Amino acid sequence: MAQAQVPDVVVRRLPLYLRTLTYMEDRGQEVVSSTELGEWTGFSPAQIRRDLSYFGEFGKQGLGYPVRYLREQLESILHVDQQWHLVLIGAGALGHALVKYHTFRRWNYHIEAVFDNDPEKIGQAIDGLTIQPMSELARTIKEKHIDIAILAVPAEHAQEVGEQAVAAGVRAILNYAPINLALPPEVHVSHIDPVVNLQSITYYL
Amino acid sequence: MAQAQVPDVVVRRLPLYLRTLTYMEDRGQEVVSSTELGEWTGFSPAQIRRDLSYFGEFGKQGLGYPVRYLREQLESILHVDQQWHLVLIGAGALGHALVKYHTFRRWNYHIEAVFDNDPEKIGQAIDGLTIQPMSELARTIKEKHIDIAILAVPAEHAQEVGEQAVAAGVRAILNYAPINLALPPEVHVSHIDPVVNLQSITYYL
Repeated sequence: MAQAQVPDVVVRRLPLYLRTLTYMEDRGQEVVSSTELGEWTGFSPAQIRRDLSYFGEFGKQGLGYPVRYLREQLESILHVDQQWHLVLIGAGALGHALVKYHTFRRWNYHIEAVFDNDPEKIGQAIDGLTIQPMSELARTIKEKHIDIAILAVPAEHAQEVGEQAVAAGVRAILNYAPINLALPPEVHVSHIDPVVNLQSITYYL
Repeated sequence: MAQAQVPDVVVRRLPLYLRTLTYMEDRGQEVVSSTELGEWTGFSPAQIRRDLSYFGEFGKQGLGYPVRYLREQLESILHVDQQWHLVLIGAGALGHALVKYHTFRRWNYHIEAVFDNDPEKIGQAIDGLTIQPMSELARTIKEKHIDIAILAVPAEHAQEVGEQAVAAGVRAILNYAPINLALPPEVHVSHIDPVVNLQSITYYL
């Protein structure tokens, strides 16, 4: 598996294939064609076949892909078949929603601790997790072997908070703050910004 | 401006350029090179020059781009220079966070009404918006000239709710439910699913 050469855009499509396959498997479907996968995900059948071919031969020409096998393979490729430990930084309205988003757990992403710098929030609990002060961040990241930090802080604090998380050993960041982060290249950063999505929509309206 | 031929992937990068330019302008920067834009956004300078060239000549060779002018042009291209009217469907923890996300308003995206099907939530207020029953959705979309619906509902309700919004006249959907929607091709749908982002990250870990 020559995964090192897989373009980022291909990697970003794999979770959408995985989501669709899981949905199909839950409904008892055993085989799927690239055409049907395309109808569900919005990508062309040729694109889907090319994307999957980076990782091996998963289907037989004309017979489609076995749903369960391809789902298992994608989970392995995306490393969803292991447990991931996360911290959440920022216990505002978004932070609350993220702690309560149970879909994370179903995919083996576990928020282990929540941090905030607001003395009024520290000590309160969200879904059983006590909000901790930022002074506890580094120790928690090390002790709990945290892989990923979710940043749900205001834009003006994101860079500083991101640096703290990386210094403590986090290898990846899911950033909800609407600002780009300048971090070492070996740190994997993914952004979620609904304004970016809305602007990509209103371009077409 | 031959915008019809612009690839979707280019359109999705424009908001990131816009966000960066706005940040630079707020700090008094007047000119920016494609190299500096690349450092901030993570795209190559050649990619950025190619993306922007779809829409015209914004800079002079060797002199960089005028920050304010390029920001204004991108706002015009992305139609951020007009007011957009949105409804939010789903008043759970995520819905609350979205209503309170003031950055939407700064970019002219206005959530005008909130809907839910839970009798316990209907009549309550979030940030001054009263949660309305789904039976009011169609009338509100028509009366308030709503362009976009944000879906923050469980996956099993997303398709039905999306169809209701489209039938009432919505032209675009921002979908937070972790499921693909089957809607007419003229409806523009954008998805936000943090699991997709996390899986794109853990591929690399």
